Amino acid sequence: MQISSAALLKASGTATAPATLAERYGRVRRASMALAAPLSAEDAMLQSMPDASPAKWHLAHTSWFFEQFVLGLQPGYRPLHPHWQALFNSYYQSIGPAHARARRGLLSRPTLAQVLEYRAQVDERIGRCLHADALDEPAQRHLLLGLQHEQQHQELLLTDIKHALWSNPLQPAYRDDLPPAASDAAGSACWLPFPERIVEIGAPPWPANAGFAYDNESPRHRVLVPAHALANRPLSNAEYRAFIDDGGYREPLLWMNDGWAQLQAGQWRHPLYWDDALEREYTLGGWRALDPDAPVCHLGWYEADACARWAGARLPTEFEWEAAAAACAPAGNFADTGLLHPAAQAGDAGRPRQLFGDVWEWTASAYGPYPGFRPLPGSAGEYNGKFMCGQQVLRGGSCATPAGHVRASYRNFFPPAARWQFSGLRLARDA
Amino acid sequence: MQISSAALLKASGTATAPATLAERYGRVRRASMALAAPLSAEDAMLQSMPDASPAKWHLAHTSWFFEQFVLGLQPGYRPLHPHWQALFNSYYQSIGPAHARARRGLLSRPTLAQVLEYRAQVDERIGRCLHADALDEPAQRHLLLGLQHEQQHQELLLTDIKHALWSNPLQPAYRDDLPPAASDAAGSACWLPFPERIVEIGAPPWPANAGFAYDNESPRHRVLVPAHALANRPLSNAEYRAFIDDGGYREPLLWMNDGWAQLQAGQWRHPLYWDDALEREYTLGGWRALDPDAPVCHLGWYEADACARWAGARLPTEFEWEAAAAACAPAGNFADTGLLHPAAQAGDAGRPRQLFGDVWEWTASAYGPYPGFRPLPGSAGEYNGKFMCGQQVLRGGSCATPAGHVRASYRNFFPPAARWQFSGLRLARDA
Amino acid sequence: MQISSAALLKASGTATAPATLAERYGRVRRASMALAAPLSAEDAMLQSMPDASPAKWHLAHTSWFFEQFVLGLQPGYRPLHPHWQALFNSYYQSIGPAHARARRGLLSRPTLAQVLEYRAQVDERIGRCLHADALDEPAQRHLLLGLQHEQQHQELLLTDIKHALWSNPLQPAYRDDLPPAASDAAGSACWLPFPERIVEIGAPPWPANAGFAYDNESPRHRVLVPAHALANRPLSNAEYRAFIDDGGYREPLLWMNDGWAQLQAGQWRHPLYWDDALEREYTLGGWRALDPDAPVCHLGWYEADACARWAGARLPTEFEWEAAAAACAPAGNFADTGLLHPAAQAGDAGRPRQLFGDVWEWTASAYGPYPGFRPLPGSAGEYNGKFMCGQQVLRGGSCATPAGHVRASYRNFFPPAARWQFSGLRLARDA
Amino acid sequence: MQISSAALLKASGTATAPATLAERYGRVRRASMALAAPLSAEDAMLQSMPDASPAKWHLAHTSWFFEQFVLGLQPGYRPLHPHWQALFNSYYQSIGPAHARARRGLLSRPTLAQVLEYRAQVDERIGRCLHADALDEPAQRHLLLGLQHEQQHQELLLTDIKHALWSNPLQPAYRDDLPPAASDAAGSACWLPFPERIVEIGAPPWPANAGFAYDNESPRHRVLVPAHALANRPLSNAEYRAFIDDGGYREPLLWMNDGWAQLQAGQWRHPLYWDDALEREYTLGGWRALDPDAPVCHLGWYEADACARWAGARLPTEFEWEAAAAACAPAGNFADTGLLHPAAQAGDAGRPRQLFGDVWEWTASAYGPYPGFRPLPGSAGEYNGKFMCGQQVLRGGSCATPAGHVRASYRNFFPPAARWQFSGLRLARDA
Repeated sequence: MQISSAALLKASGTATAPATLAERYGRVRRASMALAAPLSAEDAMLQSMPDASPAKWHLAHTSWFFEQFVLGLQPGYRPLHPHWQALFNSYYQSIGPAHARARRGLLSRPTLAQVLEYRAQVDERIGRCLHADALDEPAQRHLLLGLQHEQQHQELLLTDIKHALWSNPLQPAYRDDLPPAASDAAGSACWLPFPERIVEIGAPPWPANAGFAYDNESPRHRVLVPAHALANRPLSNAEYRAFIDDGGYREPLLWMNDGWAQLQAGQWRHPLYWDDALEREYTLGGWRALDPDAPVCHLGWYEADACARWAGARLPTEFEWEAAAAACAPAGNFADTGLLHPAAQAGDAGRPRQLFGDVWEWTASAYGPYPGFRPLPGSAGEYNGKFMCGQQVLRGGSCATPAGHVRASYRNFFPPAARWQFSGLRLARDA
Repeated sequence: MQISSAALLKASGTATAPATLAERYGRVRRASMALAAPLSAEDAMLQSMPDASPAKWHLAHTSWFFEQFVLGLQPGYRPLHPHWQALFNSYYQSIGPAHARARRGLLSRPTLAQVLEYRAQVDERIGRCLHADALDEPAQRHLLLGLQHEQQHQELLLTDIKHALWSNPLQPAYRDDLPPAASDAAGSACWLPFPERIVEIGAPPWPANAGFAYDNESPRHRVLVPAHALANRPLSNAEYRAFIDDGGYREPLLWMNDGWAQLQAGQWRHPLYWDDALEREYTLGGWRALDPDAPVCHLGWYEADACARWAGARLPTEFEWEAAAAACAPAGNFADTGLLHPAAQAGDAGRPRQLFGDVWEWTASAYGPYPGFRPLPGSAGEYNGKFMCGQQVLRGGSCATPAGHVRASYRNFFPPAARWQFSGLRLARDA
Repeated sequence: MQISSAALLKASGTATAPATLAERYGRVRRASMALAAPLSAEDAMLQSMPDASPAKWHLAHTSWFFEQFVLGLQPGYRPLHPHWQALFNSYYQSIGPAHARARRGLLSRPTLAQVLEYRAQVDERIGRCLHADALDEPAQRHLLLGLQHEQQHQELLLTDIKHALWSNPLQPAYRDDLPPAASDAAGSACWLPFPERIVEIGAPPWPANAGFAYDNESPRHRVLVPAHALANRPLSNAEYRAFIDDGGYREPLLWMNDGWAQLQAGQWRHPLYWDDALEREYTLGGWRALDPDAPVCHLGWYEADACARWAGARLPTEFEWEAAAAACAPAGNFADTGLLHPAAQAGDAGRPRQLFGDVWEWTASAYGPYPGFRPLPGSAGEYNGKFMCGQQVLRGGSCATPAGHVRASYRNFFPPAARWQFSGLRLARDA
Repeated sequence: MQISSAALLKASGTATAPATLAERYGRVRRASMALAAPLSAEDAMLQSMPDASPAKWHLAHTSWFFEQFVLGLQPGYRPLHPHWQALFNSYYQSIGPAHARARRGLLSRPTLAQVLEYRAQVDERIGRCLHADALDEPAQRHLLLGLQHEQQHQELLLTDIKHALWSNPLQPAYRDDLPPAASDAAGSACWLPFPERIVEIGAPPWPANAGFAYDNESPRHRVLVPAHALANRPLSNAEYRAFIDDGGYREPLLWMNDGWAQLQAGQWRHPLYWDDALEREYTLGGWRALDPDAPVCHLGWYEADACARWAGARLPTEFEWEAAAAACAPAGNFADTGLLHPAAQAGDAGRPRQLFGDVWEWTASAYGPYPGFRPLPGSAGEYNGKFMCGQQVLRGGSCATPAGHVRASYRNFFPPAARWQFSGLRLARDA
């Protein structure tokens, strides 16, 4: 199937998207640079755990992605740095060997300056192609995929550097100029009931779609969602504090068996970045007093699941979540607000609030393929499909997600012990 | 809700079940003894990996279960061996401490003889209660649960001792007198189509049910199952051999990311008990030539999933499987046939074959709670619910499962790397 | 060099040794059986840590040693059980593959009965050879070596089963009929001074020696031992208790860097088999009150070294120890007293006491080769030499060592963290 | 005991040492800066294994040492950066907590620029003290100790950055301008015989000594050294290559038991930085052809010991080595030659050659205390004494050791598996 460039662009746009591919490319690429701006070359090398990557690596890998998947399709293309290919390949086995994930922090060479020069060179080549209208449809498709990919790494750059700076005993801030969130009163949570119904879930396969979607969101299909109720807003710090105060971290019966083992091994007593006095939390702007009304954050799935059980409730399934979100505009406290931290928000108690932004919401759903799932053709097929085991789905984006990146059908996924993302929960219950 | 003893018995029975609780109890308890009969006291101590338990421990733990959950409910009951409580508690944190799972093989005391004496004493006390009609409804309910529990451990006794004896370089047989399976020709597999429809899945909560079911099978609820096709029989050794011969274990793109890592770490090249020449397999009757027509067995989920992908197919969801199985009698090559190994079976190609027995069939479904799931009250609530994370559902029972134990709604679950169960697969595909 | 049988026997004897090889062989072999007598087949399978071996394995391995090193030298000899060779080879790489040390507890087959039958068959064949005077000098030499080897395993059988039974939460006794040690008052310790002098250390290479010695004791050579003082007796439980009470396990400056790390990882707070109240200790006869006067036992080198430093003293070098011991008869509380536990002993304060028996005494000396060291020829050369790294020397034998086995030049060796041997210390200081 | 400043300076000097403490201090501190000069801030953060430290950490820790041990003795002294104390404390438990060794690479803050500023501030304060003659004798003693300490870290900075840059798949050179070593012919090695004699070993305790020595070199004492022979030069690459070609890495009987296990786990096939073709080696100047005549380098003790055994020889004891070295000037290919790699050297075959410089020579001696050893008073006592277990002594310094740092009595020590130092061997044999 051949799709015209204009149609493809349209098919991958959002309301606020620039009109041309070149504009959109430039905007995304500049956003990465802006996120890296507060970091020294030394900061940009930090890798505090195998699951996290250095900022420098994010900057290079996203460029490698464009070089590999877009420029590499051009006849006779020769890579800028053949020896760097393995360094910045993340996990695409069909492309070639990849430097060990846990050792990305050992790459003092190439230097940050060289990586930035590499970015500029990739940008220049992409720009030349776009100007000459030299990209065929597959290349354009990969370009658009690359922009989505880079936005995902923008969020990871933030969560990874947060963990890295926190791991330094000096615990410096990522930025000293972050404004505190305006502290609205969250108000009491209330239940919003939903009747049993058949719901259309997911998105039609991109690019034959009127908007971008990853392959793991397709195909759009019908799901019977049972009657249930959802909380009108995410769980707050004060509510989570009540769970802790009631002995939540000391009662094995509230926890999954594996979660209890992890709790004991990791000596978990509270969310990842809280202090032991349960009064302050480490943010991208440094240590701050906990806002009792703000959504609780930096929970693993085990914690979210245990807290929901303690509350006599449960986590929503991803279908329950999506059914509710389909009726809402994907707007909220995303990275573009500049807060880079979840914030309390007032609002109409009768409608679901903050489904988008603030915190990723853990769901009860294990990450797996939809019926009829087909990975993208070629190496891009390794993007999502091979992780459909042992992870849980999160929905809705966070305060570190670029605005415009997520949608109602968007599926994020992490292992149940992962706590360094901006992840919280919304309660659900059976009707 | 109070249920009469007769109703409870009826509610937990199967077509072939004895008429009285005492008869049913005796039959199950004797079956465990029969399975342990070929084992010396030394064999009964073997623990070859943390996931497996010694036969002696299985014999004791199942008795502890009756003592704890049935006799312990009797007023003034005093445990036979207070010091053994922690030894034979598996994972019931609400009851008390449990001896470390990985160290069950270090229990030379109590001796096998003492454990058998313990069994006899428990049996005698239970028998006295039954004879005196002294068990109230909760105790009777736990008694019936305990019989199901013991049947599960009968299967584990077989799979665990198989692994243990295979781990000995001498690789002795569990039994030297096992008959070889009659070798029917499996015939070519064919696809059986199923249209989209709403299916009733699961079982109503026991004991208000006309048949026993675990809490994880409830509540019965409606699921929209999409159009799909199922293979008419499990995948055969010959078909799996073709996957191997085609380089299935060398092609990372066929595998989940985590599965490929496990394959490399464990140097997997074939199913667990095959020899490197791919000609023979270790069985409970010792080493035997592979029957090309028999269902392939001792696969982990990672292998089943990769092989299905290689075949251009996928694993069925647990709902697809259950919808098909609901129409079949739960009969097949269970432990009671005495084969203790999967066997090829001829049959009508137009109907699903061997859904029950032979091999547990890995499904595409992660193990999780059904909408409205409620664990059993009390400590029995730890039975199933706390494992609903990180595991995959298997369906249908195996050649090591006691006849009468499984049903269409029965959900078994193991981590995706587990290979020591009698586990295989049936292909499915989207319509 | 050829040595006559009589000379060889004489060269390997002790004062109490029987006159003939056959008698000596029978006595040692029967002693092993006596040590195993209190153990069931289940007990004899226990392996509670990789460093320890099951009693059944000790019984088999020592027999394998005679079969391999003595019978195997006979022309045309065929092993009794070719498939068992790897099972009972400990670490002789020049002989062939060896079953993994950490998995010796998984050998339910051969059964204990089969192993005892194997012992009897080996004994019968050895006996036939001896009766027919069919062993040439190398075979006789290996026979004598095998008897020493078996005596070492007799001690290990005791220390290993002690650890295994203690690892069972029931903590049963190895024997219920062990007499308590008569409790002499140890008296205050005093220092015995020794001037600087050149000492002859070690033993001439056996069998050209007037008494058996291992290769690691040779050659006899001159060492300049500086002026120093030795305590007249081993450190007592009461004295070690003072070290604990003074915070010895909480003060990192008293410890080797690696020892402190091990203390923290293992949460050491007292010797291995003491209770947390510091009042009782687990013995081969079960739990008993600590005798304050008895030598402290079941210390690792790290503990012995730290305690000596706390006392303002140090451990003796192995040369200081041997120089003092050379003047003493190798008599004391060995296994043959039947106590199987260290005991206080009164005596002349002016002479070193209990150098032999009771507890192995950790020395300041790392285990290494003497100048001119030559391993035994052939596979027997793997016996001692390849462990000359990372271990510390212990001297003098213990209450679990067979009488007649040790001598002044005898060198035992264990890693510094090993605590499950009957190991204690004697203080030394610079003059 | 009070020692005048001039006497102390004299007591710690070498022939080439500057006349004043200030000059000496300045020279050593500038040498560290020169070694760090080729490194970017990113390079200076690299930590490729727990045993190695980032260059930035070395620069900071050595400054911390002066601040802690010299400036900290001044009345009313307040640390420049109280929050940095734990970051740059290596292992002095009596001073306070220390940042985890394995996580030194996570310190992007303080930045390299801040660390250099810290160095300058410490230098300025020390300089002011020296100018004002404000340091009392203990402070002067610690200042001299600090200079020796810094020289040790200069060598570690080189060995650690070598490992770190080699760990990068790009394997860049530390310096591109390193001259190749002039390639003298090494000539055949020959044996130099030494008769049995009593030798004075070690150095009198500093500072009451006519030259600096660490506490672990004291007290000077008499040792009876047996008759033996030493090779006239270190083993060459060509000679080590013969060991490899003869199957040295495939023959377990040549190896210590633990060494063989490490070889298998690490898949050792040649010295650390050789290529698999055995033709090139990675140096601080990048990849170069192996010089067959140069001393072999980057061996662990296990390899050195195995190779000596293969050669029918053994490693020298540290006493044999010191007795020979006492007659030689401590001159050779040290870091100040600028080669930063071992080089072949011609010379008189009748005299020991290259005892100093080129490569540290592994000895047969385990690292332990000399008779009468006393650690330095106070926290400096943690410098050497607490590592006297599980390590082997190396002697003579290397091409990465600052000239003037070592002497005949100098004892270096590393665990037997350590391979990243410039370590080789000299053969010895019994007479």
